Amino acid sequence: MFSSAGTLHMAKVSLKRAAELLLEQDDIVILCHRFPDGDTIGSAFGLCIALRALGKRANVLCGDIIPHKYSYIFEHLAPMDIKEKYIVSVDVADAPLLGMLQSEYADRIDLCLDHHGSNKLKAAHSYVDAKAAAAGEIIYELIGRLGVDMTREIATALYTALSTDTGCFRYSNVTSRTHRIAAKLLDAGVDGYAINQVMFETKTMARFALEMEMLSNIDFRFGGRMAIIALTAEMMERTAVNEGDIDGLSAIPRNIEGVEMGIMIREVADGYKLSVRTCRGVNACEFCRILGGGGHPAAAGCTIKADSVEEVKQIIVDTAKDIL
Amino acid sequence: MFSSAGTLHMAKVSLKRAAELLLEQDDIVILCHRFPDGDTIGSAFGLCIALRALGKRANVLCGDIIPHKYSYIFEHLAPMDIKEKYIVSVDVADAPLLGMLQSEYADRIDLCLDHHGSNKLKAAHSYVDAKAAAAGEIIYELIGRLGVDMTREIATALYTALSTDTGCFRYSNVTSRTHRIAAKLLDAGVDGYAINQVMFETKTMARFALEMEMLSNIDFRFGGRMAIIALTAEMMERTAVNEGDIDGLSAIPRNIEGVEMGIMIREVADGYKLSVRTCRGVNACEFCRILGGGGHPAAAGCTIKADSVEEVKQIIVDTAKDIL
Repeated sequence: MFSSAGTLHMAKVSLKRAAELLLEQDDIVILCHRFPDGDTIGSAFGLCIALRALGKRANVLCGDIIPHKYSYIFEHLAPMDIKEKYIVSVDVADAPLLGMLQSEYADRIDLCLDHHGSNKLKAAHSYVDAKAAAAGEIIYELIGRLGVDMTREIATALYTALSTDTGCFRYSNVTSRTHRIAAKLLDAGVDGYAINQVMFETKTMARFALEMEMLSNIDFRFGGRMAIIALTAEMMERTAVNEGDIDGLSAIPRNIEGVEMGIMIREVADGYKLSVRTCRGVNACEFCRILGGGGHPAAAGCTIKADSVEEVKQIIVDTAKDIL
Repeated sequence: MFSSAGTLHMAKVSLKRAAELLLEQDDIVILCHRFPDGDTIGSAFGLCIALRALGKRANVLCGDIIPHKYSYIFEHLAPMDIKEKYIVSVDVADAPLLGMLQSEYADRIDLCLDHHGSNKLKAAHSYVDAKAAAAGEIIYELIGRLGVDMTREIATALYTALSTDTGCFRYSNVTSRTHRIAAKLLDAGVDGYAINQVMFETKTMARFALEMEMLSNIDFRFGGRMAIIALTAEMMERTAVNEGDIDGLSAIPRNIEGVEMGIMIREVADGYKLSVRTCRGVNACEFCRILGGGGHPAAAGCTIKADSVEEVKQIIVDTAKDIL
């Protein structure tokens, strides 16, 4: 354990060495990132189950509540009573992404396992493989090196990691390794379809009704190069959707042919939150920075103060004039 | 060649024997099914390219125009001037599915390659593997037995087959074999992401308008356990959609929470075509067989003679009473 960042010895290690380090340790805590997704959750619990299979004590910690839809991954795992001796982070690219866990753990991470090329997390030992489509790929290989048999429970956790971080094997991060690992996980008895139904297919009736309402009022601007959908507080209340129901809505406008900038406006407590998705070289981050936000080139966001959706749309159009 | 169905010798063959038969032949015509999808197109052209690589003359025929979005599969392939000597069908479960090709070819198919357990097509030799998620899996293994190297062109055709027939590796038909083959195809240089963008992400404006119209008129029956959407000839004409725009619509109703049987009714020249998608153990194939069709347990189809969509719905409800 380390008393401060100043004394932290940092070294890149091989996956073989990472496995050796874990084999030497016990009372292991595995940290997820905030706003946890299938990759950080599946990877952390997959590793936790594997470590327990070795007779070790291990727990998973996350700074946010883990959404209910992932509960099949860990509902059979009770937290263990352990004295934290070794801290592992999984899929955490930087200290602030630890969220509520940052103040307690950011300065004493022993082993960082990640697939973000931009990883900036301080840790005694780091293994970062930016070619892995998901952190779950790394954990799969690590578990092999730990000598743990691939059980259905571990495979279920890791399949969730792979599937969710690749849009179900759709995105450009997928490699033949991703598919080869998926094959091994299915061989271990994973019900991939059941997982994918939960993650990608099933829409609640409330979500269906909301999506229909939002899309039937889609607003095309700039000759169809911009498409805007809006979600008001009144609509959320009336359709009785929850946070999980809103996943993925912001990606819909951009997927319409000809649309270069798709925007979802969502009324929130302090104004209107914009989720901006772009393609064909239009820079979403640049657009959102003008409005006080930020993000990635193809996916960014910001929050605007305004009195109505119409006023927000006017601000959007005025701002986009120089970009589109 | 066979002069009539009466003289047709029918035999199930192994994949090894199917490969031997193809190696013995030349001037080969490969038939797709009507309303062609990524599997029948990708499988047929994948096989065609492989046969040509062996120095053989081979063409692909389809009773319907192949949607433009699949053109990357075959745009580099000119039709050959051949004298049809050997007829192969790919992904064709029954003679009527040949569409416009039925009258000329249904009685003289030499080799049937399919993955529909309900296959009823008459052919001199048949190889049906109902465990294959896509006909493309069969063609992949067949090409290996033909001794043809997996080129990027063949792999692009077969990846399209696998990806489209599995909802991008999402459905219950996916096995570890599916992922292993996908891995090999990516190794051969396929740009899976580019294919998946075309197949799953981008919607034309016409498709978007059509989808909105169909879904706003969705008809829930059996307390929400069945959901029906309908596409009339008038709607197709008015919204100016093409065949490619219709892909995937049939999967939408089943994805709504609580729906066990999702049905898309489509008006076609000879009646109404039903695309049935089920989950939670409801058997789509069993349902469609009652109505003269067939398919897979979770995805099947049939064509019904009726005078209106309402009449079709009544037939559906009457038929489903004993199943739902």
